[in-house]
Amino acid sequence: MVGPEIERLIQLLAKLPGMGPRSARRAALHMLKRRDTVMTPLAAALTETAEKIRPCTTCGNLSTQDPCAICTDPRRDGGLLCVVEEVADLWALERAAAFGGRYHVLGGTLSALDGVGPEDLNIQSLVARVTDGQVREVILATNATVEGQTTAHYITDRLAETGCTVTRLAHGVPVGGELDYLDDGTLSAALKSRRPL
Amino acid sequence: MVGPEIERLIQLLAKLPGMGPRSARRAALHMLKRRDTVMTPLAAALTETAEKIRPCTTCGNLSTQDPCAICTDPRRDGGLLCVVEEVADLWALERAAAFGGRYHVLGGTLSALDGVGPEDLNIQSLVARVTDGQVREVILATNATVEGQTTAHYITDRLAETGCTVTRLAHGVPVGGELDYLDDGTLSAALKSRRPL
Repeated sequence: MVGPEIERLIQLLAKLPGMGPRSARRAALHMLKRRDTVMTPLAAALTETAEKIRPCTTCGNLSTQDPCAICTDPRRDGGLLCVVEEVADLWALERAAAFGGRYHVLGGTLSALDGVGPEDLNIQSLVARVTDGQVREVILATNATVEGQTTAHYITDRLAETGCTVTRLAHGVPVGGELDYLDDGTLSAALKSRRPL
Repeated sequence: MVGPEIERLIQLLAKLPGMGPRSARRAALHMLKRRDTVMTPLAAALTETAEKIRPCTTCGNLSTQDPCAICTDPRRDGGLLCVVEEVADLWALERAAAFGGRYHVLGGTLSALDGVGPEDLNIQSLVARVTDGQVREVILATNATVEGQTTAHYITDRLAETGCTVTRLAHGVPVGGELDYLDDGTLSAALKSRRPL
């Protein structure tokens, strides 16, 4: 009795991460009650984004331009390349505003179980960018998971012959973290990488 | 560096109930990666729903038709009127598929604190529907909250002169509920309304 249009909207909303059928229904009703302030603007934003946003052919970032704003920004250091798994990781690093170089988005990690090989990721284009010669240092910022570390090792091997410096993010105690709640692996890593005060 | 289009999409998504800035970002990225299967269909569904769905002028239900499918369904008993606060409550009752009459959506509850008076709710139209004479029984299905019960009492008073039977949903132990976890009010209500086996 809800009607096929609303039913379809609920089904589509329920596919979003963090949403289920129940919260999708709540969201749909919320929007139907705020047609002009929420629903129509959201529909317009979705249509516009779907039309305009494309992956940057240089780095894999999502942008309205190609190459993207980061790749074309002259204030960013083209000699520093930060390799991340996903665009979400790039966004996280940009939010931290601690990196002034450029990025390379792999689009995932190597995974024998899921059948993801090197040719499924943007690794060939990374090697090509580094071989071009402008890049001084590649910072591997893949996740600290088994897949992320495997991918990092593979890329290190692939970049060995280019002579480019390859580094990875430090492991250790998160800022604001309490030792009591940390896992053994992080604690061992933090101890091993201890630094003089 | 995310770009104004994506930034605006994230802001709009973050306004949905159950979503925050973080989950909105995840949802936006999820959609950007699945442009054709998720993003474009969702945009289309939102546009279509925003254009087509209107509140039924008879009962307040949301529908593409006016009067809505429930109000025009000849198989439903026009002599039974179930009064609910919101369309969400109507949907919940329809999911239970336990009611064969028609509805009346108030659009909220009386609330002195929030400045919601009888004229802000669809109470006048309810009285008019009942006065028309077809309705045998009005079932008050407002929430079992202070506001819901206040509204129910107010409506009972307003309908007193129409001579129509007014009932309310039973209070008691939820099906599948454990006594140990129930609050005192529910247990007292369940005891008071006990029935012979």
